[in-house]
Amino acid sequence: MTARIFIGERETAGIDPANRGLAYGDGVFETMRVHGGGVPLWPRHLARLQEGALRLGIPVPDVAFIEASVAGMLAGCNAGVLKLLVTRGDGARGYAPEPKALPAWTLALHPLPASLHGGLRLHWCETRLAVQPALAGIKHCNRLEQVLARTECVRQGCDEGLMRDTSGNVVCATGANLLVLHQGTWTTPPVADCGVAGVMRQWLLDEGMIHLSQMSSAQVEAADALALCNAVRGILPVANLGARTWQPHPAVARLRASLVEAYSMFSLPMGVDSTEVS
Amino acid sequence: MTARIFIGERETAGIDPANRGLAYGDGVFETMRVHGGGVPLWPRHLARLQEGALRLGIPVPDVAFIEASVAGMLAGCNAGVLKLLVTRGDGARGYAPEPKALPAWTLALHPLPASLHGGLRLHWCETRLAVQPALAGIKHCNRLEQVLARTECVRQGCDEGLMRDTSGNVVCATGANLLVLHQGTWTTPPVADCGVAGVMRQWLLDEGMIHLSQMSSAQVEAADALALCNAVRGILPVANLGARTWQPHPAVARLRASLVEAYSMFSLPMGVDSTEVS
Repeated sequence: MTARIFIGERETAGIDPANRGLAYGDGVFETMRVHGGGVPLWPRHLARLQEGALRLGIPVPDVAFIEASVAGMLAGCNAGVLKLLVTRGDGARGYAPEPKALPAWTLALHPLPASLHGGLRLHWCETRLAVQPALAGIKHCNRLEQVLARTECVRQGCDEGLMRDTSGNVVCATGANLLVLHQGTWTTPPVADCGVAGVMRQWLLDEGMIHLSQMSSAQVEAADALALCNAVRGILPVANLGARTWQPHPAVARLRASLVEAYSMFSLPMGVDSTEVS
Repeated sequence: MTARIFIGERETAGIDPANRGLAYGDGVFETMRVHGGGVPLWPRHLARLQEGALRLGIPVPDVAFIEASVAGMLAGCNAGVLKLLVTRGDGARGYAPEPKALPAWTLALHPLPASLHGGLRLHWCETRLAVQPALAGIKHCNRLEQVLARTECVRQGCDEGLMRDTSGNVVCATGANLLVLHQGTWTTPPVADCGVAGVMRQWLLDEGMIHLSQMSSAQVEAADALALCNAVRGILPVANLGARTWQPHPAVARLRASLVEAYSMFSLPMGVDSTEVS
């Protein structure tokens, strides 16, 4: 991993122990697929970062400065994963934000995760997502629910896990959004109460390839096919969920082909690792 | 502020950008009143830290090593506030914990907050606490709800704010627990669904001075007296909550006198600042 740390537009050597991201998860982040020295989905990642920061009242560093720093970091990098983390900066003790603090932020470049052959093995997570509209949809740094849920997946020997909210509605995977096929129509759960509005999910919605629909566990298990999507892996078929199994479905292949046509970087077959991307 | 940073039992210069506390709020913390070079409530703080770390699966550094480090930091310090933050340590990208990672942790010593004269002015926070039993009670580092709620208090010119859960039950203040007097009996809301089990609240429960009771906003407003409590400030009277006002009540004075008898450090009159302590 290569990493750079900034406070406002000044590069610095380390994260201060008074950083509010460290103290309270007081920040937002994006995890992005790098291709040919750039980030093809950057406008969508930037828009979500800005929306999250706006909702939390976190100042965003100068966008031109971020973009120049990203370009410098990605020079010569053909493929990888870039993580951008923006925290509210350093603070005194206490929850009240320091009005004058500059955002502290990091860029980290990682290798592409390893490929996975065949469909994903999914686990029904016991850990539920709390209903919190004030934080839903954005990619903030309060992620203990995902950490606990992903730990379950590892313990079960699964690739990923599906999470339900505390009312029982299915919401998403720990690091990806869920796509459910019923009678030729793809749907994905809403994320107005909890969950992350993934960049890849939003692209699929904007293209009219998927539609919003609230769903129960039983409806997911009754699907003709399942897939997960995120901005690093693209679209991945699901092979099983607990005891329920699915054979490869041509509708998944068609969805992937449409994505590859728009973003050729997703032509490589890739699986899911222990990523937090959506 | 004086701060020290450790990874396991090795002191280090800064927080790594790959730290999971920074990435996900993947940690627990304690904020403690220092008195006479020590932390009189240390056994209670340590117990809560250990319980939180156990529930999250975060390794706790060697306790004797923590205690020796605290002792070194507090030598000659008569009064102050000590913050101990334990994160799951550094990780790769992704929610799955790195099984071999050593905990990264910090100690920071702050001056005592300024005193406040008269009773507290409280705000009813619009920001709700999500119902999440998996994270309730412990002092973890996913604190965006408290950050948003405290921001409301500052905007309203109030000292603190009361938070309700998404079902409407009153739970706690942003950085303190709530004590409610009705007909001579003190109660405090349960924290099984959300909120923090404050060290001072627990001492009052253990002493039999307060009792658990779920309560609505209307019941709080109908109280004979309100007070807030936390481990740095002790017990503080409330003067108003929105338009509702209370005169000083002898039952608050009696509760404070009992606390001072057990812990003389709370004999100093102190108000609430923008603290996260409970």
